[in-house]
Amino acid sequence: MYNKKMCELGNCRSAIRELFEYGKIRAKEMGGDKVYDFSLGNPSVPAPNEIKETLIQLITENTSSSLHGYTSAQGALETRVAIACSLNKKYGAELCPENIYITVGAAAGLCIVLKALNSANDEFIVLAPFFPEYKVFIESQGGVFKKVPFNESDFSVNLSALENSITSKTKGVIVNSPNNPSGVVYSEETVKAIAKILNKKSEEYKKPIYIISDEPYRELVYDGKKVPFLMNYYDNTIICYSFSKSLSLPGERIGYVAVSGKVEDQKNVYASICGAGRGLGYVCAPSLFQKVIEKCIDAKTDVAEYDRNRKLLYGELSKMGYECIRPDGAFYLFIKSPEKDANVFCDKAKQKGLLIVPGDSFGAPGYARIAYCVDYEMIKRSLPAFKELILEYKK
Amino acid sequence: MYNKKMCELGNCRSAIRELFEYGKIRAKEMGGDKVYDFSLGNPSVPAPNEIKETLIQLITENTSSSLHGYTSAQGALETRVAIACSLNKKYGAELCPENIYITVGAAAGLCIVLKALNSANDEFIVLAPFFPEYKVFIESQGGVFKKVPFNESDFSVNLSALENSITSKTKGVIVNSPNNPSGVVYSEETVKAIAKILNKKSEEYKKPIYIISDEPYRELVYDGKKVPFLMNYYDNTIICYSFSKSLSLPGERIGYVAVSGKVEDQKNVYASICGAGRGLGYVCAPSLFQKVIEKCIDAKTDVAEYDRNRKLLYGELSKMGYECIRPDGAFYLFIKSPEKDANVFCDKAKQKGLLIVPGDSFGAPGYARIAYCVDYEMIKRSLPAFKELILEYKK
Repeated sequence: MYNKKMCELGNCRSAIRELFEYGKIRAKEMGGDKVYDFSLGNPSVPAPNEIKETLIQLITENTSSSLHGYTSAQGALETRVAIACSLNKKYGAELCPENIYITVGAAAGLCIVLKALNSANDEFIVLAPFFPEYKVFIESQGGVFKKVPFNESDFSVNLSALENSITSKTKGVIVNSPNNPSGVVYSEETVKAIAKILNKKSEEYKKPIYIISDEPYRELVYDGKKVPFLMNYYDNTIICYSFSKSLSLPGERIGYVAVSGKVEDQKNVYASICGAGRGLGYVCAPSLFQKVIEKCIDAKTDVAEYDRNRKLLYGELSKMGYECIRPDGAFYLFIKSPEKDANVFCDKAKQKGLLIVPGDSFGAPGYARIAYCVDYEMIKRSLPAFKELILEYKK
Repeated sequence: MYNKKMCELGNCRSAIRELFEYGKIRAKEMGGDKVYDFSLGNPSVPAPNEIKETLIQLITENTSSSLHGYTSAQGALETRVAIACSLNKKYGAELCPENIYITVGAAAGLCIVLKALNSANDEFIVLAPFFPEYKVFIESQGGVFKKVPFNESDFSVNLSALENSITSKTKGVIVNSPNNPSGVVYSEETVKAIAKILNKKSEEYKKPIYIISDEPYRELVYDGKKVPFLMNYYDNTIICYSFSKSLSLPGERIGYVAVSGKVEDQKNVYASICGAGRGLGYVCAPSLFQKVIEKCIDAKTDVAEYDRNRKLLYGELSKMGYECIRPDGAFYLFIKSPEKDANVFCDKAKQKGLLIVPGDSFGAPGYARIAYCVDYEMIKRSLPAFKELILEYKK
């Protein structure tokens, strides 16, 4: 009567979304100050002021049809020019507007790229720990999900496991740095090592293996850390980007796919992306926000606020005895569960009003994710609950 | 290396989009006043004033995170309440917010519903003439596209052909009234006849056959014509709606799916829709416009302006000798090609700057679509070209 797999996907919400919805209900029942919601990557820092000013200026000065009319399916030319120029300036990329396809956020970008690349049950490799929806996106586009474990000491890429996991059916590898959920930023050395492995395997199997680089956190880094720009290290790179985090616009669903000019048979890969977007019902990305992005492409979010949260939370939790590595980017802390089953741990946390997500669906059982893109004061208020929680394990 | 079918979809743009892109280039070369672009259903009537006022008020008075944050995947509760209440008031529907799923436009809604319903190569029936993307949407979601011919005299539904086309593999029928491209509004009698056939066949095959009602033109009707509300006639009805045409917001990609409360196993069908949305990468519909819709759900577009276009174009073209039926709704005129091959006819039109779309991809070879959601003055200016064109066939 209906598609059982879709029904299951609809009924079993992601662990993150499940907790987020629970938090909303619980806050209504108990009062918002009794719930410490660290579940969702919903930016707490407001969008830069330019966004508001640009929105009002656009709405005041333009005609309805120029603001709200259809754009070309790949996005308005002016916005694609702005995106390409910005990337060229920042990273020495050599992109033209013809390399850019504007999307309804990074999730749409990923689904479109996966559908564009997948011929028939191709394998897509994901490096743990990873954003759980990757599995949903790959499988819904008919691909085969394959995960590679990580080095437990520092959440770095297990390079030999990556190399061993590649087969003749491998079509691509999803790379996500700064990483959700670990906050790790891959070093230049790591990126070069990944490129080397993929080049070797591409040659061995006589076909391109793509890097699909999911980069919503590219600008969210601390302590002056640099994020290597993958296109500069590996030719067959396709970027999926979102302005959700960098401009605090997650609900507006605006992002882009950038296909490196050095991708083999670039024109046809780009055409396949256009075709996949069409087939999935993405007529064009929201038009008003395409214009906003054109004007605000280089606006900057206030990273200092996340940094303050990071320092407070990392500092205090470490002092209390929680084990975790210091995150260099994104806005997540990935802590080791003090007991084997992180689900049980997170349930205990929930009893204290602390909403944190078990690592199982991130491919990292025994860990838990804390999204610190929240109000600083809430973090402060939550600390006694974190303290009580860890003390239960020290009895 | 990439998906050949997607590549083909990306390289062969729809006939409509192809012509639209051509028009933009041609207008640059020749001057906009030499091109009469009737290709695209891009509303010429501006969005109602309330939209602009509401946008400015929302942006001025709300916080960034309440405007631009993630909403629940099925859409903000307040907006779903507004949509359900509006439908209940207008049509006596008995919908709750739990029946509504807010989408990134009707195209997204259709793809999501098709993916939610399709189990394995299920057949979806489309009544000619039809919006060409239906074929793309059905096939991209793994379904089998099946078309039913129409009655040439008045573009009405060929009921016996519909009945004969239903098999044990039929999962649903896409109904689109007011119709793109014919402008026909199905009468209550027609709707009842369709319902009767589907009820009979559902019983015969012991399974529900869904009506997927694509209704972006529901409010665009003339001469006081009434559009029967399908949920009131057939239980297993799922509506895909868009505010693209009714509020002139096509680029903003905002619409909804409404699942009738009487759909068999409604809860699981709704869950499958949520799951399909998730699998296709639709995290949520654009958040700012969800709020706009909540406030402006019953705003009205100025249908009188389209009506004026309709009367001018239909009147003048009929006088010149073009054969077409008087459209009751939407903003398309579907004319009979004066020569057998409408592609050749449309090419001749193109030579005169008239951009009109051959009917072949609409499942109606020998016809051509004229979208009259354009500037009234442009229609006036185009009339001599239409006259010249028909005269070529009278020599």
